[in-house]
Amino acid sequence: MRWVIAPDSYKGSLDAACVAQAMQEGIARVDHQAVCVLRPMADGGEGTLDALHAAVSGEWLCYPVCNAVGQSMDVGCLLLPDGTVVLEVARIIGLPDAGNSDVKDRSSRGVGQLLLALVRAGYRRIAVALGGSSTNDAGAGCLAAMGLQLMDEAGMVLHGCLQDLASVHALNPDGLASCMDGVSLEVWSDVENPLTGPQGATAVFGPQKGVSARDILEVDSWIAHFAGLLDVGLPHPLRELPGSGAAGGLGYALQVLGGRMVSGAQAVARHIGLADKIASADWVLTGEGRSDSQTLSGKAPACVASLARQAGVPVSLLSGAIIADHAGALTSAFDGCYSLCNRPMTLGEAMNEAPARIAQLAEQLARTILAVRPESR
Amino acid sequence: MRWVIAPDSYKGSLDAACVAQAMQEGIARVDHQAVCVLRPMADGGEGTLDALHAAVSGEWLCYPVCNAVGQSMDVGCLLLPDGTVVLEVARIIGLPDAGNSDVKDRSSRGVGQLLLALVRAGYRRIAVALGGSSTNDAGAGCLAAMGLQLMDEAGMVLHGCLQDLASVHALNPDGLASCMDGVSLEVWSDVENPLTGPQGATAVFGPQKGVSARDILEVDSWIAHFAGLLDVGLPHPLRELPGSGAAGGLGYALQVLGGRMVSGAQAVARHIGLADKIASADWVLTGEGRSDSQTLSGKAPACVASLARQAGVPVSLLSGAIIADHAGALTSAFDGCYSLCNRPMTLGEAMNEAPARIAQLAEQLARTILAVRPESR
Repeated sequence: MRWVIAPDSYKGSLDAACVAQAMQEGIARVDHQAVCVLRPMADGGEGTLDALHAAVSGEWLCYPVCNAVGQSMDVGCLLLPDGTVVLEVARIIGLPDAGNSDVKDRSSRGVGQLLLALVRAGYRRIAVALGGSSTNDAGAGCLAAMGLQLMDEAGMVLHGCLQDLASVHALNPDGLASCMDGVSLEVWSDVENPLTGPQGATAVFGPQKGVSARDILEVDSWIAHFAGLLDVGLPHPLRELPGSGAAGGLGYALQVLGGRMVSGAQAVARHIGLADKIASADWVLTGEGRSDSQTLSGKAPACVASLARQAGVPVSLLSGAIIADHAGALTSAFDGCYSLCNRPMTLGEAMNEAPARIAQLAEQLARTILAVRPESR
Repeated sequence: MRWVIAPDSYKGSLDAACVAQAMQEGIARVDHQAVCVLRPMADGGEGTLDALHAAVSGEWLCYPVCNAVGQSMDVGCLLLPDGTVVLEVARIIGLPDAGNSDVKDRSSRGVGQLLLALVRAGYRRIAVALGGSSTNDAGAGCLAAMGLQLMDEAGMVLHGCLQDLASVHALNPDGLASCMDGVSLEVWSDVENPLTGPQGATAVFGPQKGVSARDILEVDSWIAHFAGLLDVGLPHPLRELPGSGAAGGLGYALQVLGGRMVSGAQAVARHIGLADKIASADWVLTGEGRSDSQTLSGKAPACVASLARQAGVPVSLLSGAIIADHAGALTSAFDGCYSLCNRPMTLGEAMNEAPARIAQLAEQLARTILAVRPESR
């Protein structure tokens, strides 16, 4: 049988390539003639560059930037064969690197530094993979690095961390004006939240980044004030657009720079040629750490399922946890949703044993499928 | 699709009929034309009569007996349409009813009372479903109830509990001599252990019945002494036969009475006509609470799998836990082994949610199978 294996990572446990490897291993135990095409997936968050590189190679470019708390670092981004440079926000201002720093001190400045460096180096097709950021600064740091001046009431220039938005009084956008001329900017995200309000970046994603419950309203008002200054003169306020709340509001800032929001999973799938691979497959496997009704909101497995359904190829979901909704929306999107848990076990056990359990599960699924297709045995 | 659903019970959680029901429910969500034949299985232990009754009805017979600690009770046994009466040891001297009593005080007497009553009532085909007993008396109580005299050194007649075997000095088997004349006695068991020794009833099953570690050797020697007295004059000592260690040695006593050891699961399968049902099925489902390499030693799912393989029909295992051995013996016996656990969860959660989880799992499996057989959708 021809299998396309296109899982997302199991967050906190296994990257997508290892998941795909484990699935292949399980299949090979049963289907000795198996032809497996491994296409580890990503949805624009952490792991996006790895998924692209695994499928189409490309060239690593390296630039000096600062991370969310201002420390200097080198960061890699990927020049794809088609000329697009993809940068991954999680590699610059990622949550794991933020340590115990105060979210109010963090800034997306490094993203702006990298964008500017790429534009100056002459790249004209740039994609920014959002997701996995530790910042909640509405992209102010990013814009500041690219030329936006933020000033307080006394006319002092601010740096652009979240705390600065409490005192920003006026903006001077002149420096931004022409920096992205002739650049096609895509913004890859799986988030549709607006910048502010009850569904905004601060209310929904702030707490996991360290915004305390009692600060949410105040922080949200700082961001609304900043965006109010920036949106002046625009026919439609960008902060209400879907996805402007992605990556702590970096989605908003990148739209200010002319970026087009695109589904991260769909963009990755397009660049790794997933639809073509699926078209000639007999079965598709995907998966992620935890699947629930959120999975259908643009996560990688939903994107894989949708391509498989379009091609008329069966697709099964092999995840760490399967939390099916009562309406059956999740399960009816797949030809079988299975958890790697082979017994009552703790989360720690499930994560530790993930490679072995994924292989076992893929083996079982292959046994079932081959029993109906004995000619493939 | 035509489905045969033949699970064992999920011990401590759901009886086999409820498991089968949950599986059917899950299938029906996907396969709207499904024809499901429910054949809850058993392996000769607890639930055997229920499984038989669910499949072939039959007539309940009721007799007064005593339980393992000597209390009077009524017990039902099942007269099958073919004239066989089946009695279930677990209903008379079952482990859950033994409470905190000392295993040395428990006796299989009630089983002998029931056998005798059935023979006196004229029944000539009797099957005893072993399994789930709380006794470890080598069947002495059963034999005593049927006429065997056990005497101590002073010539006093003993009752036949395990403690009595410490002082038994001589036996008078005259009362037993003709009581089973003309009776065909089958003994249904899934256990192959001998009566005594390191693989014997006391060493292997004693601890779970309350034989303390330091008593094992002594209790084993009592039983060996008793069997030595009884085996006198036999060409081959029965206590070494496989299955003589079943049900605390009741397997031995029933062989003394002329019983033939039979695989409990196979006997149940034969009586419920499972092979015939499987022959006209497209897929077979079975399952149990916990599946491991022991499953292949005569447990109900292994018997179902073997019948399915003989008929060339795919068979999948849906259990609470799947503990696959490294050699792959368990998994290669089935066309897919799946656990009902849909996420990291505790044993308690798995047991509480079992019906919902089993239904969900069966639904997923049906989705996978129907994806390969779109004509069945």
